[in-house]
Amino acid sequence: MSDQQTVSGPETFDRMWADLVPLGRDPDSGGYHRHAWNGADTEVRAWFTEAAVARGLDVRADRNGNLWAWWGTPGPGAVATGSHLDSVPDGGAFDGPLGVASALAAVDELRGRGLTPTRPLAVTVFVEEEGGRFGVPCLGSRLTAGEISPERVRGLTDASGTTWAQAMEAAGHDPHAIGADPEALAGLDAFVELHVEQGRALEETPHPVGVASAIWPHGRWRMDFTGRADHAGTTRLSDRSDPMLPFAHAVLAARALAEEHDARATVAKARIAPNGTNAIPSSVSAWLDARAADGAVLDAIVDGVREVAAKTAREHGVEHAMVNESLTPLVSFSHGLRDRLAAVVASRAPDPRVPVLPTGAGHDAGVLAAHVPTAMLYVRNPTGVSHSPHERARPEDCHAGVLALADVLQDLLERPVDEGEG
Amino acid sequence: MSDQQTVSGPETFDRMWADLVPLGRDPDSGGYHRHAWNGADTEVRAWFTEAAVARGLDVRADRNGNLWAWWGTPGPGAVATGSHLDSVPDGGAFDGPLGVASALAAVDELRGRGLTPTRPLAVTVFVEEEGGRFGVPCLGSRLTAGEISPERVRGLTDASGTTWAQAMEAAGHDPHAIGADPEALAGLDAFVELHVEQGRALEETPHPVGVASAIWPHGRWRMDFTGRADHAGTTRLSDRSDPMLPFAHAVLAARALAEEHDARATVAKARIAPNGTNAIPSSVSAWLDARAADGAVLDAIVDGVREVAAKTAREHGVEHAMVNESLTPLVSFSHGLRDRLAAVVASRAPDPRVPVLPTGAGHDAGVLAAHVPTAMLYVRNPTGVSHSPHERARPEDCHAGVLALADVLQDLLERPVDEGEG
Repeated sequence: MSDQQTVSGPETFDRMWADLVPLGRDPDSGGYHRHAWNGADTEVRAWFTEAAVARGLDVRADRNGNLWAWWGTPGPGAVATGSHLDSVPDGGAFDGPLGVASALAAVDELRGRGLTPTRPLAVTVFVEEEGGRFGVPCLGSRLTAGEISPERVRGLTDASGTTWAQAMEAAGHDPHAIGADPEALAGLDAFVELHVEQGRALEETPHPVGVASAIWPHGRWRMDFTGRADHAGTTRLSDRSDPMLPFAHAVLAARALAEEHDARATVAKARIAPNGTNAIPSSVSAWLDARAADGAVLDAIVDGVREVAAKTAREHGVEHAMVNESLTPLVSFSHGLRDRLAAVVASRAPDPRVPVLPTGAGHDAGVLAAHVPTAMLYVRNPTGVSHSPHERARPEDCHAGVLALADVLQDLLERPVDEGEG
Repeated sequence: MSDQQTVSGPETFDRMWADLVPLGRDPDSGGYHRHAWNGADTEVRAWFTEAAVARGLDVRADRNGNLWAWWGTPGPGAVATGSHLDSVPDGGAFDGPLGVASALAAVDELRGRGLTPTRPLAVTVFVEEEGGRFGVPCLGSRLTAGEISPERVRGLTDASGTTWAQAMEAAGHDPHAIGADPEALAGLDAFVELHVEQGRALEETPHPVGVASAIWPHGRWRMDFTGRADHAGTTRLSDRSDPMLPFAHAVLAARALAEEHDARATVAKARIAPNGTNAIPSSVSAWLDARAADGAVLDAIVDGVREVAAKTAREHGVEHAMVNESLTPLVSFSHGLRDRLAAVVASRAPDPRVPVLPTGAGHDAGVLAAHVPTAMLYVRNPTGVSHSPHERARPEDCHAGVLALADVLQDLLERPVDEGEG
């Protein structure tokens, strides 16, 4: 695709989206299983590389496997925009890919407008944002930001026991090269991530596009309940060490505590062994996902779940351990950048009061925010449903997102390089 | 192995057991995953065939894949003994295989005693007693007894979606031939199954061997909770349809009702979809295993679980369905055969009051009892643990089991053919 005055970002977005939607789609559920280094992931990464190369962008994989497609020569004062292409297990089409396709479409839109940027622009794809395969979210951005150790990442295993290192190597990337990349981040003056909204706040307004204010503190905790396998038909109740029972108590405690504190706490994943109808489980491992508006409330919820799990495990002769697997404190996005985005978005908005929203969802932008002035745009979600094959965004709202992102990038790219971000 | 006066059943049992124990053993857990038609199942079936052929027995697979090894020409008045070789997922070494190896060892013992039976004897191996792969127990014996339809069995699927028909065919057996085999059962005058005890009743006595009185009514029910996948971090609690919550309530209700009724009710298996840390599940399927001393109590427990599951599902906007997958009414073993076994076992027992025990466990003997005079022997289990890699029986108790089974078979085989069972 060459620089032509006639190119429109929304049009090229529609074409890219039509190419991207079928890749790795489950024919039964309509959902996606795009996870780091698997077949579907390879397909969507190839799609990105091809689309970027077709635009004359220079595509590079960094040491952590994240993809960077450059418009202009990488250097100081760069602006980056992008998101991720992986999904949760059986996830939706929009969470992640919307931000990537919109970024490429915004490049087309800016070229269509005849823009010649004074700064380099990178369109980025971060690896394994959802943690759908290896259990820990935002691995690509955390590695690059130096917020997780390469040793730990290499040793993470998926459900079948394959390590990150094995999977990365099989996909043709060197797992020994992974780690912090301070130079890459030091070159960035701004990072903007466009994302489908994962709630219905915009739906209650006339606005197709909003701006992020903050990400709630959130984390994941693994709970291991270890009992003793035994015959479900013959073992007296008093002789059992059944880990399913404290697990069930923990599930209900998480919900009750979230209600009490007006927060979120969810047990959505568990592994039961041996998972046979007539064998009392030997172990149940389960994951708690908890998020709250402030850290003290988050602590209260997690402590409460731990207490119930430990007490009921004791009552049933079951061992219990609970470890934190990831924890992200409150992220407040750059106020200066946030206000600048809101002002730019307002120029095209139905009214000037562009919604500025907090979220309970983690994002690569939340990881980068500690290192680079960072902001996010949200595109309206008519049902609020996300992490599901039923995740949706209206085409006209996606188009509004592309134009808003193009406006924001134009604003950032036209500034002199010696002007920083606030 | 030829007929020699010097052969002792306990000795040959030890040699067979040493051959059998390593087959398909999980090096990590020490447990077994021997399920119908899988690789480990093929290995243990080959072991059985080789051991039976080495004894000059004539081995045949019946239309359902059950193995019959004949001593003498099959015909009216036959006696059969045996059990199964499959396991629950990560099961123990004894549940099933002890009865098969003991049966072959009893043949050796009887030959060592110089017995020339007046009736034919079959050593049997029934397919998929545990239901570890296809979810429904006692498939081999139920098919042969005409107690389950061939159509239903052919269509049963394992966790990976493979049907019984596909798996059976891949293992070299014709799935279109399966079904009731009334001639096979009509030829039998008695069936005796030796089994490791799955409780600690014998451990509290001086007796290494006991006799079964009855099998509790028992069954399996599948509970499907269908909600809606959604983002665990952003979806308001009031907007959720989280199937994990009514599932957890059902787990706890089963336990409470079992306590209330002095029975057994266990939820040991569940499938959670999509099973991602940050995606509220779209569905949870779970299996209830319930057993009680009489049918009315069993009904009360199952109805109670259904009520709690339905009520809490409604409260959380989740659909709920519960279907019975298998149900076995109270089995009272033949009183005449039971008393005859108890008298024979008493001749070698530490005191004449041989324990006669009910059990909550299902067995192929329970299926056959409606068609053939049937009895069971139990071998003492020091911990009571079963369906677990920790399942144990002492070698000397296994030897006592072999001798008791040989005594019982000798008693049955020496009777004139025109004398039936009681």
